[in-house]
Amino acid sequence: MALEPAPTAAALIIGNELLSGKVEEANLPLLARNLRGLGVELRRVVMVLDHIPTIAEEMRQLSASHDWLFTSGGVGPTHDDVTIEAAALAFGTNVISHPDLEAMIRGYYGDKCTDGHLRMALMPEGASLESSPEVPWPTIRVKNTFLLPGIPEVFRIKLPVVMSRITAKIPYFSRAVYTKMDEGDLKPLLDRVVADFRDVDVGSYPKWRDPAYKTKLTFDGRDEARVRAACDAFVATLPEGEPQKVE
Amino acid sequence: MALEPAPTAAALIIGNELLSGKVEEANLPLLARNLRGLGVELRRVVMVLDHIPTIAEEMRQLSASHDWLFTSGGVGPTHDDVTIEAAALAFGTNVISHPDLEAMIRGYYGDKCTDGHLRMALMPEGASLESSPEVPWPTIRVKNTFLLPGIPEVFRIKLPVVMSRITAKIPYFSRAVYTKMDEGDLKPLLDRVVADFRDVDVGSYPKWRDPAYKTKLTFDGRDEARVRAACDAFVATLPEGEPQKVE
Repeated sequence: MALEPAPTAAALIIGNELLSGKVEEANLPLLARNLRGLGVELRRVVMVLDHIPTIAEEMRQLSASHDWLFTSGGVGPTHDDVTIEAAALAFGTNVISHPDLEAMIRGYYGDKCTDGHLRMALMPEGASLESSPEVPWPTIRVKNTFLLPGIPEVFRIKLPVVMSRITAKIPYFSRAVYTKMDEGDLKPLLDRVVADFRDVDVGSYPKWRDPAYKTKLTFDGRDEARVRAACDAFVATLPEGEPQKVE
Repeated sequence: MALEPAPTAAALIIGNELLSGKVEEANLPLLARNLRGLGVELRRVVMVLDHIPTIAEEMRQLSASHDWLFTSGGVGPTHDDVTIEAAALAFGTNVISHPDLEAMIRGYYGDKCTDGHLRMALMPEGASLESSPEVPWPTIRVKNTFLLPGIPEVFRIKLPVVMSRITAKIPYFSRAVYTKMDEGDLKPLLDRVVADFRDVDVGSYPKWRDPAYKTKLTFDGRDEARVRAACDAFVATLPEGEPQKVE
């Protein structure tokens, strides 16, 4: 019996500094691995500049076409932080100052609190605040969309709370086979296992100048028995002396 | 007198292994920095799965809406390498085997050449092959779109040839200011310089727990005099003891 399809997700990464090459994006690999662990299929990532209409349009499309959307970047207090305003535009609502957030900010900055700091209390009207006892500083959620900060250290702290809100039941199961054969020679063997196991995602990744192996083959799916069967069927077709390793 | 707008570019990053979090994307930062150095504005990056209709549709849209498009991934010989086929679909042409590429492949593999290896001679009909005396293995180009390989070591080798085909004349000029002020306090000063220098891109990047500075401000544009003036105007508004550094 076929499993239900995996829930789908998209990510929207926001920031001029990433597209200009000044800063290397660091949040996506962590998000991708976390979603994978929950059995959620990350299907699309879009990276855009700090431009409100572009962000809003992308947010509207990605949130409508996926079960979950995660954004990274643009939630600070300065002029180039426009994700909250874009989210309000995308979801057809207004930007308001949230009393709880405002109180937290006033409590944190005390006498030194400025209008700039208070901008961090802004959120789209109707959004919810997601926090936990361990991570009290909240992440803003609008429907199926979580607005995460771009600073990797803060993204990392907030992600577990966000992930705890994702309901998915069947994680992916993976096997990997390492061989010293090249992709040209592997192709007919791969074509056979791909044809026989349409429900298993088979990947082939050449490694450049590694003495241990030349190509890594991966087998992925949410039905563990099928993944194991596909991997075993493939390994059985390899010539003597192969594979180098299965894991 | 205002400068001509910068040429625009997009990148399309292809590969299940990136979206599943198994492999961290490594080509985008290099591409972004190279384009920046040429004065080309990278405006959008899209990352998708190994799915022909999705890749083709994205390629069609991104190539039509930008001066240049660069793809990364999916150009090898196995079943999950579908970028050539997607490019043919996107540009309304057929996949053919290129005689020069076929000859190079036969020359390289000799007696051990398989049908799998020969798949690497496939390209969209009407595409051109871009190479140089130093990098003879070509990159496939269809109109304004270059199809680069995902393997970082090969991407790195091929990129200089591709960049030599990009005609752009006015590089970006950048200044950076480091301060121990936080974004909330900086906001009114930033708002003033942003309002006075609409043609300069001003960025603000908080650093998490660094003893040397708290916020890095960046000033970018293709008109060096305007960038310098914006940076100087901002620095003049800082309180005593600031900035920590300008570079």
